[in-house]
Amino acid sequence: MTKKIFSFSSGKVNCYFDASFENPERIFSHDNTIIITDENIFTKHKRKFKNRKTIILQPGEQNKIQSTVDSIIRQLIELGADRKTVLVGVGGGVVTDITGYVAGIYMRGISFGFVPTTILAMVDAAIGGKNGIDAGVYKNMVGLIRQPSFILYDYSFLKKLPREEWVNGFAEIIKHASIKDASLFSTLESGSIQYYQKNIEELSSLIIRNVLLKAKVVANDEFETGERKILNFGHTIGHAIENLYGIPHGQAVAIGMVAACKISTAINGFKDTDRVENLLKKYGLTPQMAFDKDKAFDILLKDKKKVQDNIQYIALQKIGKAEIVKLSIDKFHSLFTGL
Amino acid sequence: MTKKIFSFSSGKVNCYFDASFENPERIFSHDNTIIITDENIFTKHKRKFKNRKTIILQPGEQNKIQSTVDSIIRQLIELGADRKTVLVGVGGGVVTDITGYVAGIYMRGISFGFVPTTILAMVDAAIGGKNGIDAGVYKNMVGLIRQPSFILYDYSFLKKLPREEWVNGFAEIIKHASIKDASLFSTLESGSIQYYQKNIEELSSLIIRNVLLKAKVVANDEFETGERKILNFGHTIGHAIENLYGIPHGQAVAIGMVAACKISTAINGFKDTDRVENLLKKYGLTPQMAFDKDKAFDILLKDKKKVQDNIQYIALQKIGKAEIVKLSIDKFHSLFTGL
Repeated sequence: MTKKIFSFSSGKVNCYFDASFENPERIFSHDNTIIITDENIFTKHKRKFKNRKTIILQPGEQNKIQSTVDSIIRQLIELGADRKTVLVGVGGGVVTDITGYVAGIYMRGISFGFVPTTILAMVDAAIGGKNGIDAGVYKNMVGLIRQPSFILYDYSFLKKLPREEWVNGFAEIIKHASIKDASLFSTLESGSIQYYQKNIEELSSLIIRNVLLKAKVVANDEFETGERKILNFGHTIGHAIENLYGIPHGQAVAIGMVAACKISTAINGFKDTDRVENLLKKYGLTPQMAFDKDKAFDILLKDKKKVQDNIQYIALQKIGKAEIVKLSIDKFHSLFTGL
Repeated sequence: MTKKIFSFSSGKVNCYFDASFENPERIFSHDNTIIITDENIFTKHKRKFKNRKTIILQPGEQNKIQSTVDSIIRQLIELGADRKTVLVGVGGGVVTDITGYVAGIYMRGISFGFVPTTILAMVDAAIGGKNGIDAGVYKNMVGLIRQPSFILYDYSFLKKLPREEWVNGFAEIIKHASIKDASLFSTLESGSIQYYQKNIEELSSLIIRNVLLKAKVVANDEFETGERKILNFGHTIGHAIENLYGIPHGQAVAIGMVAACKISTAINGFKDTDRVENLLKKYGLTPQMAFDKDKAFDILLKDKKKVQDNIQYIALQKIGKAEIVKLSIDKFHSLFTGL
């Protein structure tokens, strides 16, 4: 087990890599813990949840909504959860987002931790303290920024992870490399999903590298007034398409990243759209798709990234270097329709 | 206009006493502001809301619930609210609690301010950053601690405040005096609601004194790990009765305070239950009521103040001095049934 501690303005997060959810030893105690997971995880890993107070959610982004929060709160009250209770979210991004959010608002805030079970949650969703739910078609419209007290990485959950979830996770890994780590980008170009599935040690270093990268960006700007925005690369258009067509997050972000590369070319002459596109394809993503631009733009305008008549757009200058560009809505609209 | 600035760990709060909501000058701008109020306030003070983007809620504690939050969020999206939008809650404690809560979770947190329109909101609900909603019979079960950027006191709202609302507010003023300010207690003994209604200057100093008292307690312990708990004097039993019978908050707290005085007598020999009771009566409160102790105790056990098998109970040592007493549930139960 490797332990790393990240300090954010709102608190410290202990990360335990290669740890065990079943025998968490001193990471958390089972006495005052309530587990939140989803039906998929629970069914696949039943043995791990034996004798645990567990709240089981319906799986999927379509359940990352207020009625799920209402139901969890009712169950917490029934289970007698009090201010010393610790919630532990075991699952993908939907479970960790909801768990962090409920912990933030239940009795005005109780402690929580995560056991991410997907690549995407391990390298992205579980890190940074952003949590929340969707409101209608608007993703993460409601939520908080609040850090978990711990994140426990138990790679045994990955054994039963479907291939499409590996693909999903690598979309965010490629995003990290694109915005901040050219050497990681090259490493990925010579790897593959199969390679990381077979080499757990390589996978573990890849995960740690991505966690460090994201945690560093977040620690410098927890409340996203500046640099943290670069993590939204590919997500402005990506979220709009995801909501419009209900396609997987990684797939949507892949489409959003290629669109953002092309917009970058128009803004600053970025030259490596092909490299990004090819890497995405190598990891099973399909970064192109015809979509309804008018509808997508309407959703975009309600995105949190819009402030008054401007949008903070993330462009690439080169592989490994992103920039925040303030664009008027009109300017962005013409770049967007020109895609 | 008098300005006072309070510093909390999570931010500064500017308090403007004797200010004008209609002409807030530099306190807030109307351009990026969305007002949240209730139908009672809106109808009584229509002129004040002219040409303002306003979200109007159904009045009353029974609407301090999730479906109201859902509706506000839908309206904010429709109104195009973004991260630079400021929400201004104009109303009593229900409006300020909901406004602060929605501002805390919309787009993971936007700025907000309060214009309290009742005595209770002016001296209590608007101060301290606690916000939230009820869940079933459990008061404030869901919420956050997050400070407003400003509180604007416009006494012109009090002209149309019904007498029962004055009574409600004085319950919290008497609470403040009881736990922290013996000299204020004596001052109140020689005053009356009529007196303060007629002497706006005296009322203004009374309000400022109460705001200072509460803000000081909160500033020392914003997240209620210690001293702030004394503000819960009368509220453990009070909240249970309020939810059980739907009686006004002040009335319920008055009953809770007298019960807490009697429990104090049992714990530490507190001698002045009669003085507290008489002062409450002088201000129109009826601090005694037969209630279903079994049902009230069941609700009490789900209260946020319970932690594992103990309850943090607020007792009075003497007028002006409160103490936090940790009681086992069993001990508290026997004191409670002995009332």
